[in-house]
Amino acid sequence: MSLNLKQEPQGLYGPVEYMLGLGGKCLRPKLCLSAFSLFSDDITDEIVYPALALEVFHEFTLIHDDIMDRSDTRRNQPTVHVKWDDNTAILSGDAMSILAYRYLALCPPDKLRDALKLFTDTAMGVCEGQQKDMDFEEQPFVTMDEYMDMVGQKTGVLLACSAAMGALLACAGEEKVKALYDFGYNTGLAFQITDDYLDTFGDPVTFGKPIGGDIALNKKSWLQVEAFHRAKAGERFPEFSQILALGEDKREEKIARMTKMYEELGVREAASEAILQCHAKAVEALEKGGLDAAQRDYMTEFAEKLIHRER
Amino acid sequence: MSLNLKQEPQGLYGPVEYMLGLGGKCLRPKLCLSAFSLFSDDITDEIVYPALALEVFHEFTLIHDDIMDRSDTRRNQPTVHVKWDDNTAILSGDAMSILAYRYLALCPPDKLRDALKLFTDTAMGVCEGQQKDMDFEEQPFVTMDEYMDMVGQKTGVLLACSAAMGALLACAGEEKVKALYDFGYNTGLAFQITDDYLDTFGDPVTFGKPIGGDIALNKKSWLQVEAFHRAKAGERFPEFSQILALGEDKREEKIARMTKMYEELGVREAASEAILQCHAKAVEALEKGGLDAAQRDYMTEFAEKLIHRER
Repeated sequence: MSLNLKQEPQGLYGPVEYMLGLGGKCLRPKLCLSAFSLFSDDITDEIVYPALALEVFHEFTLIHDDIMDRSDTRRNQPTVHVKWDDNTAILSGDAMSILAYRYLALCPPDKLRDALKLFTDTAMGVCEGQQKDMDFEEQPFVTMDEYMDMVGQKTGVLLACSAAMGALLACAGEEKVKALYDFGYNTGLAFQITDDYLDTFGDPVTFGKPIGGDIALNKKSWLQVEAFHRAKAGERFPEFSQILALGEDKREEKIARMTKMYEELGVREAASEAILQCHAKAVEALEKGGLDAAQRDYMTEFAEKLIHRER
Repeated sequence: MSLNLKQEPQGLYGPVEYMLGLGGKCLRPKLCLSAFSLFSDDITDEIVYPALALEVFHEFTLIHDDIMDRSDTRRNQPTVHVKWDDNTAILSGDAMSILAYRYLALCPPDKLRDALKLFTDTAMGVCEGQQKDMDFEEQPFVTMDEYMDMVGQKTGVLLACSAAMGALLACAGEEKVKALYDFGYNTGLAFQITDDYLDTFGDPVTFGKPIGGDIALNKKSWLQVEAFHRAKAGERFPEFSQILALGEDKREEKIARMTKMYEELGVREAASEAILQCHAKAVEALEKGGLDAAQRDYMTEFAEKLIHRER
């Protein structure tokens, strides 16, 4: 199989190829194909292209998110809007969202309607999640419920869709499709909290990007949201606010003090706990959906790799 | 029927509602439903929603084009990126492209595969057309073939898709779907040349926006491309280049001189002629496709309104 990308106009397809060549984890296609393989061994192009659609869609959202967040690098390479310009990044992203639909449309014809609905509802959810994430920047604080709802849409639904798509294409039946959806959703939550955790507590060598970026930018990560509420409940809110107010010139001090505060407030442990809870919910969904032990083990192992990773 | 737009997050759906409420011509849905009505009277939600998808997709491209072109107004109202900001315009546009697929997916199930392929191929073509249009800005000149190819993708294919979609949903058969595609494509070309014509030779009162905008911006319109080659063939190239080099401060002089030059080079007449030729090709496609006289008259009248308009 091949991506079947056209060459011309190069201004449009060059950046698409560049982005797809940066070598992401391909988590979504892997999750889709893993879920599929629980129920069928017959992995043909009709399955692989829709799995690929999930990655292409994800990469489309990254291109546009990088413009909106003014991020200069992605996977240690310049982002599309930096290597080219904003207009190119907007239009190449648009082309990728359409390309995702083109690949999805190659699924088995009798599955098309359900697959399309699942995919489109998911895509809309991802947009809503991104909007909520941007809205957070304007809010003085967010509740943990708001945070989890945002992450659920921005990250959860696409992993949910990926796992459910695999089951759907393998004709697994409604109950099992639903189980894999819930598995993917909760795995997505665990994945994102792990991301937030590693951004502060990761090993700088293995993490692949500078530690403490979220703290430096006052990003409303899981850690910050939890710390906010714990600091508020305790006597440490003035100190917490003081650290938030430290500017770019105090980057190192800011990261060091906030990290220490996270530790002291028990936020680090709480994050580890929350990750395990989401993971447990994911596994539970598989049980509820009637998957057998071998199927559950296979998917559980997949999810464990995501939360025990170091980058 | 209703657009069924969600309300929250308002930051995402507010701009979508705003854009869809600006009141465009709704040319594409009208074309789709007109083509449908040639073959069937049974206009249900399963037909109207896909027709609406064409408009939503078109409006999505306008939001993103307006960012790329830094256009401040659209239909005498502020564009989305001006009323809100670039990020909002990017993300709302993304949501609209997905919304278009959501509406399209409501078509009769047995038509979904063909409708989806037609729509996706078209959407990709529109992106390619926009890229080529942007590439033109960097080129010293473009040939008429390049120009027509660009317009064919940027405008032609979506009108082609609209007409063909109507026929497809009405089970008109492959030959007639093809005929309506070709009719829409050539009507799209005629439509765009008319647009270019009106931008210079329209009545300032009825046109609804200032006359001469394309000339002021050195936009590679049909008129400019034709004038370039005629000026080059004659002895008037230095004068033509001189006018192109006039800056924003000489806007009125520039528009007046270039308009006069277009007249003298016979470009105005040539444009009128080209519009009629495209229109004739559109009508011819209907004959070739075996549509009867009543069907041909109905669609011909539709197309004539587009080329005899004043705005």
